[in-house]
Amino acid sequence: MTLTVGIIGAGRIGKIHLDNLQGIQQVRVKSVSDVAIPHLESWAVEKQIEVLTTNYHDILNDPEIDAVFICSPTNTHATLIKEAAAAGKHIFCEKPVSFTVEETEEALEAVKKAGVKLQVGFNRRFDSNFRKIRQLVQEGQIGNPHLLRITSRDPEPPNVNYVKSSGGLFMDMTIHDFDMARYIMGSEVVEVFAKGAVLVDPAIGEAGDIDTAIITLKFANGALGVIENSRRAAYGYDQRLEVFGDKGAAHADNNRANTVEVSTAEHVSKEKPLYFFLERYTQAYIDEVKEFAASILENKPVMCDGFDGMQAERIAKAARQSLETGAPVKLEQVGHSASIY
Amino acid sequence: MTLTVGIIGAGRIGKIHLDNLQGIQQVRVKSVSDVAIPHLESWAVEKQIEVLTTNYHDILNDPEIDAVFICSPTNTHATLIKEAAAAGKHIFCEKPVSFTVEETEEALEAVKKAGVKLQVGFNRRFDSNFRKIRQLVQEGQIGNPHLLRITSRDPEPPNVNYVKSSGGLFMDMTIHDFDMARYIMGSEVVEVFAKGAVLVDPAIGEAGDIDTAIITLKFANGALGVIENSRRAAYGYDQRLEVFGDKGAAHADNNRANTVEVSTAEHVSKEKPLYFFLERYTQAYIDEVKEFAASILENKPVMCDGFDGMQAERIAKAARQSLETGAPVKLEQVGHSASIY
Amino acid sequence: MTLTVGIIGAGRIGKIHLDNLQGIQQVRVKSVSDVAIPHLESWAVEKQIEVLTTNYHDILNDPEIDAVFICSPTNTHATLIKEAAAAGKHIFCEKPVSFTVEETEEALEAVKKAGVKLQVGFNRRFDSNFRKIRQLVQEGQIGNPHLLRITSRDPEPPNVNYVKSSGGLFMDMTIHDFDMARYIMGSEVVEVFAKGAVLVDPAIGEAGDIDTAIITLKFANGALGVIENSRRAAYGYDQRLEVFGDKGAAHADNNRANTVEVSTAEHVSKEKPLYFFLERYTQAYIDEVKEFAASILENKPVMCDGFDGMQAERIAKAARQSLETGAPVKLEQVGHSASIY
Amino acid sequence: MTLTVGIIGAGRIGKIHLDNLQGIQQVRVKSVSDVAIPHLESWAVEKQIEVLTTNYHDILNDPEIDAVFICSPTNTHATLIKEAAAAGKHIFCEKPVSFTVEETEEALEAVKKAGVKLQVGFNRRFDSNFRKIRQLVQEGQIGNPHLLRITSRDPEPPNVNYVKSSGGLFMDMTIHDFDMARYIMGSEVVEVFAKGAVLVDPAIGEAGDIDTAIITLKFANGALGVIENSRRAAYGYDQRLEVFGDKGAAHADNNRANTVEVSTAEHVSKEKPLYFFLERYTQAYIDEVKEFAASILENKPVMCDGFDGMQAERIAKAARQSLETGAPVKLEQVGHSASIY
Repeated sequence: MTLTVGIIGAGRIGKIHLDNLQGIQQVRVKSVSDVAIPHLESWAVEKQIEVLTTNYHDILNDPEIDAVFICSPTNTHATLIKEAAAAGKHIFCEKPVSFTVEETEEALEAVKKAGVKLQVGFNRRFDSNFRKIRQLVQEGQIGNPHLLRITSRDPEPPNVNYVKSSGGLFMDMTIHDFDMARYIMGSEVVEVFAKGAVLVDPAIGEAGDIDTAIITLKFANGALGVIENSRRAAYGYDQRLEVFGDKGAAHADNNRANTVEVSTAEHVSKEKPLYFFLERYTQAYIDEVKEFAASILENKPVMCDGFDGMQAERIAKAARQSLETGAPVKLEQVGHSASIY
Repeated sequence: MTLTVGIIGAGRIGKIHLDNLQGIQQVRVKSVSDVAIPHLESWAVEKQIEVLTTNYHDILNDPEIDAVFICSPTNTHATLIKEAAAAGKHIFCEKPVSFTVEETEEALEAVKKAGVKLQVGFNRRFDSNFRKIRQLVQEGQIGNPHLLRITSRDPEPPNVNYVKSSGGLFMDMTIHDFDMARYIMGSEVVEVFAKGAVLVDPAIGEAGDIDTAIITLKFANGALGVIENSRRAAYGYDQRLEVFGDKGAAHADNNRANTVEVSTAEHVSKEKPLYFFLERYTQAYIDEVKEFAASILENKPVMCDGFDGMQAERIAKAARQSLETGAPVKLEQVGHSASIY
Repeated sequence: MTLTVGIIGAGRIGKIHLDNLQGIQQVRVKSVSDVAIPHLESWAVEKQIEVLTTNYHDILNDPEIDAVFICSPTNTHATLIKEAAAAGKHIFCEKPVSFTVEETEEALEAVKKAGVKLQVGFNRRFDSNFRKIRQLVQEGQIGNPHLLRITSRDPEPPNVNYVKSSGGLFMDMTIHDFDMARYIMGSEVVEVFAKGAVLVDPAIGEAGDIDTAIITLKFANGALGVIENSRRAAYGYDQRLEVFGDKGAAHADNNRANTVEVSTAEHVSKEKPLYFFLERYTQAYIDEVKEFAASILENKPVMCDGFDGMQAERIAKAARQSLETGAPVKLEQVGHSASIY
Repeated sequence: MTLTVGIIGAGRIGKIHLDNLQGIQQVRVKSVSDVAIPHLESWAVEKQIEVLTTNYHDILNDPEIDAVFICSPTNTHATLIKEAAAAGKHIFCEKPVSFTVEETEEALEAVKKAGVKLQVGFNRRFDSNFRKIRQLVQEGQIGNPHLLRITSRDPEPPNVNYVKSSGGLFMDMTIHDFDMARYIMGSEVVEVFAKGAVLVDPAIGEAGDIDTAIITLKFANGALGVIENSRRAAYGYDQRLEVFGDKGAAHADNNRANTVEVSTAEHVSKEKPLYFFLERYTQAYIDEVKEFAASILENKPVMCDGFDGMQAERIAKAARQSLETGAPVKLEQVGHSASIY
């Protein structure tokens, strides 16, 4: 049995998904659509893509296509999800689903009605460190969780133009941490307090965003959590997490390119963390598409669904609101989700 | 030249200071006062203490005494500081100085007027890990500080009666972390947001306190900080700290009784952290009294003065107020300190 | 440009090479030969192998084939190398090249005469930890090397029948460490002293072999080295290495499946090392065939040639002789190599 | 009850023992003898030593003295032990006991006859890392020991004149490792093979010694061991140990002044090991004299007796002989010990 796939949007992340999909025996990537076709032709030949088109409807209307990957800009996601669902395609959509809770809700309703699967691209759920910690929590090895800490720092800030259109730090960067918080704790976030600062680059501040943040979370199970963010860590991509419970704690450190430790007259040193998400989450990107394919082929639930996508967006919204008002924000004040699932 | 010392209060911490003072060649501990003398007599003989008294005025009135150690309950500190200052004695006082900013201010005024030295017992400033990090920050090796994180968890909660009289988590436990935050960052805390929970022991909640907390700090230099507290870590005393700046980060891990790593069919394991403050801060307790003695004998500033004591108390007050109101609290709303130093 | 490859021998290692070769864009695996064809047919279909044969001459005689992978039993290696060289094929041969220095020399002569490339399967040279250490040594970052230590322990001993036919511990297991010693130090081994014991399984002793060893090496540059071996480490595959020079030391630790550290009331633990060579050297196996292909396609030297294969065998012989005589053995007493390269 | 002590020889190590003895409540250091009295007078006053003499007989003849510390040059040890034993004094003697097995045997006979206690100054037995590993071995937590590795490197070579009179690397430096080997394994060394080199300083070679060594040990229980030595590690004092058994392994890493890890754009670094034996074994020196005092006051065996001293010397002799002959040496060929204990 083969899963036939079409990819909508062949930017950096679309190309990564293509490479990873081609490494799965049961998957055939038949079609790719993108607005910038002239630049993609030699690439498409090299990758042996059968159909290259500027019109994504060519993919949605192709009865051979079982599933689509939505890798286009965020402002197109909700519409594409609705159309793909209506066409009966299973959907893998990059995060975030949309910039508004209302749009996301509409998209999820369409998915629900069509009975197709939707996986949202929270790749970090597939990382072996974080997966192990989730497993330890679920097995009760650290007891009831009391505290969660996520340290998440990028090696470089994005282009300021990107910052302007991305929805800001909470929506484009911390959204991964908000999802991770729910994933690890197995409990919903009920309150958010965000404190931000512009310490990395004044241009980010001028663009209306922040580059440094500490966000306090309260969970439905009574536990507390904290996320630390910076847009620029001199030593590279910093992705650590610790959960503390009444039986103990589990801590995930960064990954490094090798385990070598060098001792000299000056100091004892080791490698910096792997540089950025492409290096750090190489295997997670492979595993997320493998598991998406498996969830369709074996008809089992996806590991990260539309509801997960919506909840992360709602927390991001709450964080933004808290930053702006200087007060904690309850999640129930941000959209309403109970009706969906 | 010899420094002659009297100790007021011979409970656990008074006895530790006595042992450490007796290990300093230039120090002579002449007198000890305590209300519970019958229990102390054989101890005093063994320790070769010349004067054992129930009346601390015997110490304050003794012209041979150069300095006093105030190790009695917190509610006596401010009065004792004022009397000791009036008697011209240098003062080492356990933290906190008092439970109210007003009382502390009065005590500091008395110290200022008398021209004596006052060191407050923030022993962690003398720990080699935290000292190293402060040095790295001051040398600019991590650049301008952006983020501070303090993880501070006790192995066991105190007796609930203690909780009732101690001033609560922020005043008896987190106060060390508040001081550490100022010490490491070299900048004042200007805003506090505290989130707390009762997850360790419901009796603590019934006593009006919390046992788990996440506190967000904003510093005058624009940086942000977070403190994580728990009254009970199953694996022991957890005392870690990380500061992050534009040139990098410095992280202090826990101390362990040995460096042994054991690999078996089950796992690879190492020692838990040193159990509690007596084990972890053994050397810091020695060094704080050594440096207090040196600051008098060599007439140089103490490493931790009355203002430091007051500021930590004000942050604790702000945290308590934030917890009660659910909103961030500006430090300027809590007493006023600028007039003092 | 495409490199067309045939694989001789489709056992475990042959299949791994096939998978890795199929992941290289410029490589086409056309043919596979094996004596046990009936078991391989469905596998060959799944892997889309064009030619499946019991007769390896079908590969050697195929003018389309550029290179062969020799993955058959050791006692066939030398003959196959000679025939493949005569047929003008480039050769990748699993280690060891043969059981006798004389046979190996003959094979290398044939390769030299034919002007083809020969790479020997010392996969560990491609491991990122060891590669980094070699680079540090070559850059002079640890100065002149004085001491080398290799810790190499398997998680499980092989079947006793394998032990009987494998040439023994030094020839089937330590041979990797002997090659690593030369690779890291960039200097030839000139003397070997081996001490062995049967501590893991008496059956290994009855089969005429040892299961535990410490081997001391002397290098041409005056440095000393030591290899520690065991056939069974309860905690898994132990692959560490340290080189010490006049400017410092570099140490490579084991790899683990994740970086998670768990702290409980009992202990602080982390993952065991990756289980065995397939897990630990997954990427090294990929990289060794990638670089073999590149060395042909770009006509550059292989990273591990026939001389390397022969030298490792000679050291293994010397170690065996030292074990039997109880005295150190000079490498010059074991065959002669200077004539070859 | 008080133990009254005299110290013979007030060089560096004699002074350390004095400081540590003065920290023990039940010990009174009454007398010190040394040939270089003029330089010691102010020191003796400061330390409140009652008797300072050039004649050690003043100590041996003093009926108040219970125990002596022999801290004079090695060539005086055996004579002093015999005289002290004859005078009925308990003895703490620095290592080695003498330069010849015969002299050591005579000294031990005298101790045995007199019924006094003799502790030899193998301070590393009291180090918390190595003690923990010994405990793990004795409790069977790593199973039957198969392999032992000791890495022992000094930060600086001694003065060449010292090298000439010290008995050489094996007798003055490796002797600690030989003792450690027996202490950890709980089994006697039966064979030694030593390989040495002069890589640190040619002057050491000209003085007839080596500065770099790898020594292979065989134990009576069948296990193997290896010791790696260098007189100069650029990064400081390197004191690690690993024991491997059929249930697992235990490894002791170096100690550092703090646990701080610094991450910058260049690398992730931590402190170098503590500089040398005075820094690394500060607590071990304290504990060895505490336990010596306790063994007399509570009449229990010393942790490290004359037999231990003699065995380490015999292994050092065997190593020297192996180095000179180029062949392994059986310990039974070096003196004979069975008659003593």
